[in-house]
Amino acid sequence: MQARDLTGRQPREVRQLIREGRWTRPTSGLCLGHAQANMAILPRDLAFDFLLFAQRNPKPCPLLEVLDPGSPEPRRIAPGADVRTDLPKYRVYRYGVLEDEPTDIRTYWRDDFVTFLIGCSFTFEAGLVQAGVPVRHMELDRNVSMYITNIACDPAGVFHGPMVVSMRPVPAAQVAKAVQVSGRYPSVHGAPVHIGSPEALGVKDIQKPDFGDTPVFKPGEVPVFWACGVTPQTVAMTVKPEIMISHCPGYMFLTDVPNESLAVV
Amino acid sequence: MQARDLTGRQPREVRQLIREGRWTRPTSGLCLGHAQANMAILPRDLAFDFLLFAQRNPKPCPLLEVLDPGSPEPRRIAPGADVRTDLPKYRVYRYGVLEDEPTDIRTYWRDDFVTFLIGCSFTFEAGLVQAGVPVRHMELDRNVSMYITNIACDPAGVFHGPMVVSMRPVPAAQVAKAVQVSGRYPSVHGAPVHIGSPEALGVKDIQKPDFGDTPVFKPGEVPVFWACGVTPQTVAMTVKPEIMISHCPGYMFLTDVPNESLAVV
Repeated sequence: MQARDLTGRQPREVRQLIREGRWTRPTSGLCLGHAQANMAILPRDLAFDFLLFAQRNPKPCPLLEVLDPGSPEPRRIAPGADVRTDLPKYRVYRYGVLEDEPTDIRTYWRDDFVTFLIGCSFTFEAGLVQAGVPVRHMELDRNVSMYITNIACDPAGVFHGPMVVSMRPVPAAQVAKAVQVSGRYPSVHGAPVHIGSPEALGVKDIQKPDFGDTPVFKPGEVPVFWACGVTPQTVAMTVKPEIMISHCPGYMFLTDVPNESLAVV
Repeated sequence: MQARDLTGRQPREVRQLIREGRWTRPTSGLCLGHAQANMAILPRDLAFDFLLFAQRNPKPCPLLEVLDPGSPEPRRIAPGADVRTDLPKYRVYRYGVLEDEPTDIRTYWRDDFVTFLIGCSFTFEAGLVQAGVPVRHMELDRNVSMYITNIACDPAGVFHGPMVVSMRPVPAAQVAKAVQVSGRYPSVHGAPVHIGSPEALGVKDIQKPDFGDTPVFKPGEVPVFWACGVTPQTVAMTVKPEIMISHCPGYMFLTDVPNESLAVV
């Protein structure tokens, strides 16, 4: 089974394949037109602070759904799904140390776990492509370039740290279009946080990203920076929580939400 | 001192007058062009559920700022302000019963209080007026008409209940404009939740609102319904929390936030 076989399938069907262990690879390109989500699971005693952190930092932490303590079903964005089995790969951290990369987290599950599902840049990237704005890392089948910035997130309780941004090179004549298109999706990072001038963000060498692959610029392209969903995980890790479970990067949760339903205009 | 004397003043100045007991009346019309906020204060042990309720119900509960437990300063939307002294009148409820209407709540303050500041319809009403859409209750100097609907809010923990809506009669030819203008302000209730057909909302008699004054329709006007900031207070009251403090209706918190900075486009 190839990703292209699942491009046009419904998220519910593909979640079932994942649950049965029949799809174990990254989710990029699956169920085209539907939003995918980052995931972070934390114990209830950290949940208020983390929810407040997301409320105060909506650009890097756009919440698609927060589940009731103990509930594994995102009944708003994916009724019938189970976050314990429906992602292809997870990461389990104890006190900030990666302990396991399981394909099922039922044995780890606790009644006090609160699951946060967070919007992902795949949604606005699909919008950019449709609007004719080139998305270089997709063209080259690479990972997007990400940087730790000197922008401090607005802290909340125990959570604090710098904003992580993703960067896409955009032709100067299409930067305004990129702003307008991504700005339509405030629940999946929205408009860029910064355009041009990497040094003003504390990025000393654009060719040396902190995460992801090295960027490829063409002449006349400008670096455009968006708040990145890696931020909340990075911030959560600095607290070294007793336990935290997330998706494995690239192995996202497939929601039933059509990308277009997240557009504001 | 009349409201018109304070129309053009800065929010910081007027908060100081309120703190000194020199302004004790409603805040409508003060500091024109700046957002005013509803307020709800709850103990920390209810704060996660209430924050989750707001996250799940952003149209009736648009959060402008949530303060750290014990902090009385909204340092994001009104640096230097103090929510214990800077509103002209408060309401203190114990177990759901109104106990006091003080002008200062310092004697009630506790280190575990979490303050929620919630967007208010004054902001989009200013936008409607500027766009030439008549706002009847303002023209007549009455209170807006509000109705308890059959729309259930998405529950969270102990909090659940129906959505309360405000209704404004709009000329049929200007309904689309009213949608577009209010939709620009998602953090202050945003676009209408319902247009026409009160019975579909469970409103049996539009002339008998549950809160506020009786509406006045002109021929050719359509009832347009917006999610209302009375919702979170109504919902919080049904839980009969040990203690809850809110603003007194009409006696709002004056933020430093320009209305236009809340517009998305």
